[in-house]
Amino acid sequence: MSRLLENVCSELQRLPGIGRRTALRLAMHMLKMDGEHVDSLAQSISSFRHDVRYCRSCNNLSDNDICPICSDERRDRSTICVVEQVQDLMSIENTGQYHGIYHVLGGVISPMQGIGPSDLKIDLLADKLLTGEVKEVIIAISTSVEGETTLFYLTNRLKAFPDVKVTTIARGIGFGDELEYVDELTITHALMNRREVR
Amino acid sequence: MSRLLENVCSELQRLPGIGRRTALRLAMHMLKMDGEHVDSLAQSISSFRHDVRYCRSCNNLSDNDICPICSDERRDRSTICVVEQVQDLMSIENTGQYHGIYHVLGGVISPMQGIGPSDLKIDLLADKLLTGEVKEVIIAISTSVEGETTLFYLTNRLKAFPDVKVTTIARGIGFGDELEYVDELTITHALMNRREVR
Repeated sequence: MSRLLENVCSELQRLPGIGRRTALRLAMHMLKMDGEHVDSLAQSISSFRHDVRYCRSCNNLSDNDICPICSDERRDRSTICVVEQVQDLMSIENTGQYHGIYHVLGGVISPMQGIGPSDLKIDLLADKLLTGEVKEVIIAISTSVEGETTLFYLTNRLKAFPDVKVTTIARGIGFGDELEYVDELTITHALMNRREVR
Repeated sequence: MSRLLENVCSELQRLPGIGRRTALRLAMHMLKMDGEHVDSLAQSISSFRHDVRYCRSCNNLSDNDICPICSDERRDRSTICVVEQVQDLMSIENTGQYHGIYHVLGGVISPMQGIGPSDLKIDLLADKLLTGEVKEVIIAISTSVEGETTLFYLTNRLKAFPDVKVTTIARGIGFGDELEYVDELTITHALMNRREVR
């Protein structure tokens, strides 16, 4: 086997979800692509890894010290939405319905994986609350055991700021979900948090 | 969204089977990888695309003009196995049971996709047969409509070399396949090509 092909395949296999066969398929596809396109792919990978930064204010990925959301004058600085990771921030941004700012924790508390509160950007969040500008913190993290642990830790920590309202996003039946296939815990929560319609 | 992240995602999405979400997941994983590993990934992609060559003798991918298989003195030059693409050659090599040489067509005849015989390395194969060294050509291409068309074209073309035996790999029930789930055409061929066991 060609050493160049062998190299590119074993490098691609370092990526999650890419096995031998997929690596080979990607490599063979690159041969059919324009040389320039392949170079710009390679270039964009290196630049992204080396040049991207974390926003000093919210820990979002950014090209500068402060991310576009934090530096946008039109965003409502009195509301902070706390998310686990950058992908979650993007999902919320995609709705176009949220106009506050964010705070990216960079993970959840997981004793099994050796991730404690000090590994997350919780102090940075507390610093922002010290300014007294924030009125509400919306905690939008997953309902896994680790997520619930993190939620518990955060709410405790936020007791130091009694004037700040702390909320979590609603749990319930998703749009398009069929009740028949929804798990019991979700249905239980959806029942408990029922809303009056008339 | 960070422009660097946007760039790497849209470049990754040029690859087959990689959508928006996968591109994002790969990019986020790169952030956790060593910078050096990410650079060697990017580097291996560019070198592969620009430096890999096609073997002048069999059209296999190679680092040099002649691939390691064609330049291996121990391979039996009297048998040529004709395959559609490099991946097929690798699958056969992985069995460790084939000691002849190969010929990579680089595709199959497909009028729908505008691929005619002249787009494949068929002349190169015919040139090799002219030396008179070859005793058998094993055609190992897929049983799709295009594959069958290519097989038909090749066998016709090889009539010019009456001393060369032309064979195709056996079609039948794969090891581990359950008869219940095998398609009718395969079963029909497996019945027709039955072998005496005593």
